[in-house]
Amino acid sequence: MSENISVLGLGLMGSALAESLLAAGHRVTVWNRSPDKAEPLVAKGATRAATPAQAVGASELVIVCVLDYPAVREVLEDAPLRGRVVVNLTTGRPVEARETATWAAGRGADYLDGGIMAVPYMIAKPGALILYSGSRTAYDRHEEVLAVMAEPRYVDPDPGMAPLLDLAMLTGMYGQIAGFLAAAALVTSAKYPLTEFTGTLLVPWLNAMAASEPATAAAIESGDHRTEVSNLEINRVGMDNLIRTFREQGVRPDLLIPMKTILDQRVARGLGHEGLSGLVEELRIG
Amino acid sequence: MSENISVLGLGLMGSALAESLLAAGHRVTVWNRSPDKAEPLVAKGATRAATPAQAVGASELVIVCVLDYPAVREVLEDAPLRGRVVVNLTTGRPVEARETATWAAGRGADYLDGGIMAVPYMIAKPGALILYSGSRTAYDRHEEVLAVMAEPRYVDPDPGMAPLLDLAMLTGMYGQIAGFLAAAALVTSAKYPLTEFTGTLLVPWLNAMAASEPATAAAIESGDHRTEVSNLEINRVGMDNLIRTFREQGVRPDLLIPMKTILDQRVARGLGHEGLSGLVEELRIG
Repeated sequence: MSENISVLGLGLMGSALAESLLAAGHRVTVWNRSPDKAEPLVAKGATRAATPAQAVGASELVIVCVLDYPAVREVLEDAPLRGRVVVNLTTGRPVEARETATWAAGRGADYLDGGIMAVPYMIAKPGALILYSGSRTAYDRHEEVLAVMAEPRYVDPDPGMAPLLDLAMLTGMYGQIAGFLAAAALVTSAKYPLTEFTGTLLVPWLNAMAASEPATAAAIESGDHRTEVSNLEINRVGMDNLIRTFREQGVRPDLLIPMKTILDQRVARGLGHEGLSGLVEELRIG
Repeated sequence: MSENISVLGLGLMGSALAESLLAAGHRVTVWNRSPDKAEPLVAKGATRAATPAQAVGASELVIVCVLDYPAVREVLEDAPLRGRVVVNLTTGRPVEARETATWAAGRGADYLDGGIMAVPYMIAKPGALILYSGSRTAYDRHEEVLAVMAEPRYVDPDPGMAPLLDLAMLTGMYGQIAGFLAAAALVTSAKYPLTEFTGTLLVPWLNAMAASEPATAAAIESGDHRTEVSNLEINRVGMDNLIRTFREQGVRPDLLIPMKTILDQRVARGLGHEGLSGLVEELRIG
């Protein structure tokens, strides 16, 4: 069923979102601070709003994707929010999402916060995922429309949970990238073909290792860090070999150092017999 | 065809290797510093040698898997190495492998160095991989026997290459683990179920992200770090959000800090428009 949807913010991501909704046959009203960004969408059937208030007034479902959370508030400040559903897909922190949900509630709007796990060109394609948290009612009411942009996944009533899990996924990604970059520096220092190493050795290995993470997650949840496979003492020996090799090959081991530090800390506490899951405890403050 | 093979060093890994060779019908001679470790293997048909020299004398193919490279030399010091093939599966550094290859050549032995990408219980099971480097002749001659223990992969005539690629794969793994541990600390700080996050969100995401690494590898090899997807400036904003969120959630961001540092360095050099592949340049010394 064709619905009225407004999209505020037409950067690469906002434009991709609006375009996917247009392509699905919805009536899309768009607004952007610099109005020229709306042109390609108007050419595809979107209606251009002159002000944010006009854009918000045009639809019950209001999607916002701007630079940051202060910009969200600024854009929605004078808009008629009462009775509408604000879906905020702007990148930010959990505390900002919670504050914005409270702010929106104060103006009579229902609020969903979203974390987009995709780059713009992946929108409306397989593999794109958007996490949502906040109003379950709003999610259930609009799930079908949200599914046009990317696979939607409702995670929690706490509006901060979607950005938190989004950031946790990015954390996992940055760790994987850091490991890849350090490995790449080591492999190229030895003049071994990097694409061959990456495609035939590293990626299958990482996929196999990732498959063991749910078991490590269960160990973390239970607090039982015993292992029969690879304890911290053994890992520390491996890590020392690694770091010496980096230096011998003329490569900075910087990306590995904090992992070595927490391994050393944990072993120094007399917990060298435990598995890697126990290292999480070293990351908790207080 | 049944062959004579000697295995020196019967820790968890050496025992698993010897057992797989016995199970495949080979005549296996074993030696270990503390002789009781040989008993379960003798019960399965292995012959126990009284000394390393006796073990080496029993077979053309000599597999060594001891604590470290100094122990390899100590064990083989008085053994009749001439005309034999030493396959050293001890964990160590590339320089140690090269030195040991030279040392073995000086005693008339052919030398293969190996990097075992498996834990002991995976030996002789699908997914276990051993990288070999050094004498191609020795590898070709014994490939069929080596394949009993784990999928064998010959990577380079430089005997240091198998340990180097082994360490590079461990580097990638430690990066992935560091990312997982940091993500786990963040997710549990918000009381979200970690096994659910890991199984349904993180692991599929990491697998999707790993699939893009060969393309990043190609960019590193070409030195062309241009991107249209996600430049360093955008990643730096994401990283700052991440680190602030860690602190707000009471979680140490330590494991992410060096990645932030090299991102900042690269952007400070005016290269914020480049992609993540360019960060490898920051890891090279001189």
